[in-house]
Amino acid sequence: MRLAELSERSGVSTATIKYYLREGLLPPGRQVNARTAEYDEEHLRRLRLVRAMIQVGRVPVAKVREVLGHVDDDSLGRTIRLGAAMWALPQVPEPDEEDEDVRDAHEEVAALLHRLGWENAERLAPLSPAYRSLVVAVAAIRRIVHDWGAEQIAPYAELMHRTAVLDLDNMETHPSGAERVEFAVLGAILNEPVLQALHRLAQEEETARRYGFE
Amino acid sequence: MRLAELSERSGVSTATIKYYLREGLLPPGRQVNARTAEYDEEHLRRLRLVRAMIQVGRVPVAKVREVLGHVDDDSLGRTIRLGAAMWALPQVPEPDEEDEDVRDAHEEVAALLHRLGWENAERLAPLSPAYRSLVVAVAAIRRIVHDWGAEQIAPYAELMHRTAVLDLDNMETHPSGAERVEFAVLGAILNEPVLQALHRLAQEEETARRYGFE
Repeated sequence: MRLAELSERSGVSTATIKYYLREGLLPPGRQVNARTAEYDEEHLRRLRLVRAMIQVGRVPVAKVREVLGHVDDDSLGRTIRLGAAMWALPQVPEPDEEDEDVRDAHEEVAALLHRLGWENAERLAPLSPAYRSLVVAVAAIRRIVHDWGAEQIAPYAELMHRTAVLDLDNMETHPSGAERVEFAVLGAILNEPVLQALHRLAQEEETARRYGFE
Repeated sequence: MRLAELSERSGVSTATIKYYLREGLLPPGRQVNARTAEYDEEHLRRLRLVRAMIQVGRVPVAKVREVLGHVDDDSLGRTIRLGAAMWALPQVPEPDEEDEDVRDAHEEVAALLHRLGWENAERLAPLSPAYRSLVVAVAAIRRIVHDWGAEQIAPYAELMHRTAVLDLDNMETHPSGAERVEFAVLGAILNEPVLQALHRLAQEEETARRYGFE
């Protein structure tokens, strides 16, 4: 397809597509003559991913380029390739290891992973921003509810594991490696607000079921 | 207890406590003489809630005052009182009803609630920021994945309902109405980052279980 059709099908303006091409976020089209290039379904897919990262995820252009580098790197194993793409997305700041609550939170998270038998997550922990985010979030709670830890978190972790199983099952409906990594990145950006809203809505539903509208 | 002890036990400076007292975020202590006031466990609990909203949730002082008004309002029914406190927390902007994707998302969310049998959430929808957040999040996905809707969301909604059941069970371990509302507000601020981090960590665990570290 020509640039005009790519723009129409993606809903992204031709000026923005040209900008993405200049920035290397979209691979060049196949040049058919000096003034015209042809684009295909892969361009369309990639354009949707770039748009989701920039417009919905508010990811800076340099980060987008970094994530796409991992998405396209066939030389990485699947777990690391997925991880590398996700880990390049914006993350929480490093926890402050001088802080006593942070050190306690580290212990609670380590105890949690052991209790759950999440051996892979234990092994990935030193690399993983998700692990660090969890430590930061647990430390914030412990500052207010001092005895909160692995025991209270475990039932939530089991439900989040079932959520992740759904994510991966959905991802596996896509045939190619690059498409799967793209799907995972899209999911991280687009699905999390849905889960948060569903959780709040479910709280309302369950509250009204228990207490009515008295 | 005196102000100094309240400060020590809460980890909040006396200057900040005095500021919260002036702003009406903390009820005054019982005056024992012209220069000294006594505070109790209820002050300590309220101080933790205020601190979580301001420091962790970055909720503006005027909003904190509004939320506390609902927390303390015994005249409201339980569902509405919980809702009113949660709804006063920062929320996403209103969806743009002129937008075709937003209108489609509305239909998908309505179909979802019907399919799930969430009759209470249907009834609360016109009041509920969680409902509006879900519409906005679904519209963002549909802009990129056009055929995504109720069918894809339903299994996630079931898991989020189980999460909400855990939340409410935990809340019911607290005896008084005001404490329960406080717990719900604390949970909304403190628990959501934990769930998000657990979800990402569970994705790593499940990815490595399926594909190893090849």
